[in-house]
Amino acid sequence: MDARPHLAAAEALIGRPGSRHAIPTPAAVLDLDAFERNVARMQARADAAGLALRPHAKSHKSATLARRQIEAGAVGVCCAKLAEAEALAAEGIGAILLTSPIAGAANAGRAAALSRAIPGFRMVVDHVDGVAELAATGAPLQLVIDVDVGLGRTGVHDPDQAADVARAILRHPQLTLLGVQGYGGQWQHMKGANARAAAVADGMARLATAIAAIREAGGRVEVVTGGGTGTFAADAAQGLFSEVQPGSYAFMDRDYRDALGEDPDGAFEQSLFVAATVISANHPQWVTVDAGLKALSTDGPLPVLADPALDGAAFRFFGDEHGMVTRPAARALHRGDRLDLIPGHIDPTLDRHDLIWAVRGDVLEAVIPVDARGASQ
Amino acid sequence: MDARPHLAAAEALIGRPGSRHAIPTPAAVLDLDAFERNVARMQARADAAGLALRPHAKSHKSATLARRQIEAGAVGVCCAKLAEAEALAAEGIGAILLTSPIAGAANAGRAAALSRAIPGFRMVVDHVDGVAELAATGAPLQLVIDVDVGLGRTGVHDPDQAADVARAILRHPQLTLLGVQGYGGQWQHMKGANARAAAVADGMARLATAIAAIREAGGRVEVVTGGGTGTFAADAAQGLFSEVQPGSYAFMDRDYRDALGEDPDGAFEQSLFVAATVISANHPQWVTVDAGLKALSTDGPLPVLADPALDGAAFRFFGDEHGMVTRPAARALHRGDRLDLIPGHIDPTLDRHDLIWAVRGDVLEAVIPVDARGASQ
Repeated sequence: MDARPHLAAAEALIGRPGSRHAIPTPAAVLDLDAFERNVARMQARADAAGLALRPHAKSHKSATLARRQIEAGAVGVCCAKLAEAEALAAEGIGAILLTSPIAGAANAGRAAALSRAIPGFRMVVDHVDGVAELAATGAPLQLVIDVDVGLGRTGVHDPDQAADVARAILRHPQLTLLGVQGYGGQWQHMKGANARAAAVADGMARLATAIAAIREAGGRVEVVTGGGTGTFAADAAQGLFSEVQPGSYAFMDRDYRDALGEDPDGAFEQSLFVAATVISANHPQWVTVDAGLKALSTDGPLPVLADPALDGAAFRFFGDEHGMVTRPAARALHRGDRLDLIPGHIDPTLDRHDLIWAVRGDVLEAVIPVDARGASQ
Repeated sequence: MDARPHLAAAEALIGRPGSRHAIPTPAAVLDLDAFERNVARMQARADAAGLALRPHAKSHKSATLARRQIEAGAVGVCCAKLAEAEALAAEGIGAILLTSPIAGAANAGRAAALSRAIPGFRMVVDHVDGVAELAATGAPLQLVIDVDVGLGRTGVHDPDQAADVARAILRHPQLTLLGVQGYGGQWQHMKGANARAAAVADGMARLATAIAAIREAGGRVEVVTGGGTGTFAADAAQGLFSEVQPGSYAFMDRDYRDALGEDPDGAFEQSLFVAATVISANHPQWVTVDAGLKALSTDGPLPVLADPALDGAAFRFFGDEHGMVTRPAARALHRGDRLDLIPGHIDPTLDRHDLIWAVRGDVLEAVIPVDARGASQ
């Protein structure tokens, strides 16, 4: 028998009226109208600020959606891991910045292959040993020095180390130093535009110091990349970045909605939902849906129900494959009913899904593969 | 270019000395010796108790590993979702119990196709409407009435409903009533064998009442299935089950280790690890590894380091694709070092991985596909 018969049946749904309500659940459902408005809005913000937009593809992991962003004006996309970049490059995306450092000769070889395959490949490095591993491949590589601007996750730790890495790059004629990256992941979800702006200002001061050290070491810094959905306004105001890397704005999630509220940074619509079906409704206080730990992220806030008519109903996890939805006062819930959930944290939610079911209104318009799903290597 | 070049390279590693240390990370790494001891130990426990063993495949989602369990004496496996069952049936597993109710005509059609494709397919049902949907397919189906034994997630809610569902099944000659299921998911992770035994005793009383009602309605109850890794001793002692459904024992995780301690139910070894690599070590207090929210479950306790030589080092999540490992006192950690993590909760961890890298000692012996990864539909 076929391993995924419900997917073979999906093509027949495309274009049929009401087909949104026949998508097999749990499913990642994309409201294309909202997605397209989000893409246009972020591009307009970047254009107005004179910033290049390089959306982070770790949110959608899809070559199809990356292409939509590039067609709208993005200069390319970011990827978090080599495997993510390989998956998108294999599907024709030709401009990718790898935003995490890598380690080891085998991975350096993969980076070299990527650089030879797509002219627009560039990657970060944060240690002289990383430079040596890349240089040993003999491949031409375009490099960005990752600078720790306060997160402490990756990046050179101080200006001396920044200068050392720059000098190491300059020693190899096949390596090109493009500039620097500074990413403050923890700032993105801070509540309040002023709090985010203050954190960004501190981080940009650290980044400016690193840039000065690199220039003093003889390095060129033309690209200054970083930032995310939550800090766009502050990133633009600081004026240090040449390029920004927001990702979640295309889909949004509850975590960003709670943090950004009515700030300009929050002016994006929820476009990605996880559709679920009530599979048991025998309990008087709640019903059970078919989306659980394996369909939704659990690291952020709990998912919430998208339909305002279900006000008062709350979602709780109910094991690997199920969720509990408390019965709302206003509407009875029955076995077979379908519900849309707003995920708590969009990136790890989408990484649990092989497909994005793209709808316009209640019509399924396309089934989009999540090309880099699981591509964490 | 190839979408997953590191996987194409993996086959060359098989059988090579030290190849365990060349597996691309983050990776789900299975210690085959420990896995085989776990499988043999649970089979011996079931045999000694006179119980049929039907391991839950939601833990491993792999036809290869299901076959190992069946070869060791299991009567078949359990699946949580239709798509999980379809994926394993497509790879030749012929005896599957679907342990969650389904809803809707489309899904009933998929169940009918499964029943026609593999003679050993059986499934639970917990509502007369579910029986009607299955009956409408015209397919011969072997059914088990799911009974809520206290979890409140799925199952008939009281003896009257159990009798109603039994009568609905008996009305259709192509439907066969095999028996009942009672699963207490919340009991599995209770600390202390006595606490688990008391909870099981309460639940078994509810299950016995449902069985009596079904028999009074004219239904046969030959199969009594349920239970899990944490409650095996209590399940066997109660004597009501004919068949048990443990899953996690094959791999184990930190959550079960913490709950079961030195109880007989905890007498299984950690066999599944997530291997990670240090990709940045610039910070004085910690290093950054390449396994984060997309490689490990976040719903249970935090992962812990497997190597006792790293005593004192703690893992924390550090975003989608990274983890923080605090520097231990006894050993320096460097860029490029590899670490094995014990996952917090094994089932959702494994569902983030496409492949299981099966090792014996430090040699990669096989690369096993996680056939039903993401198969939540």
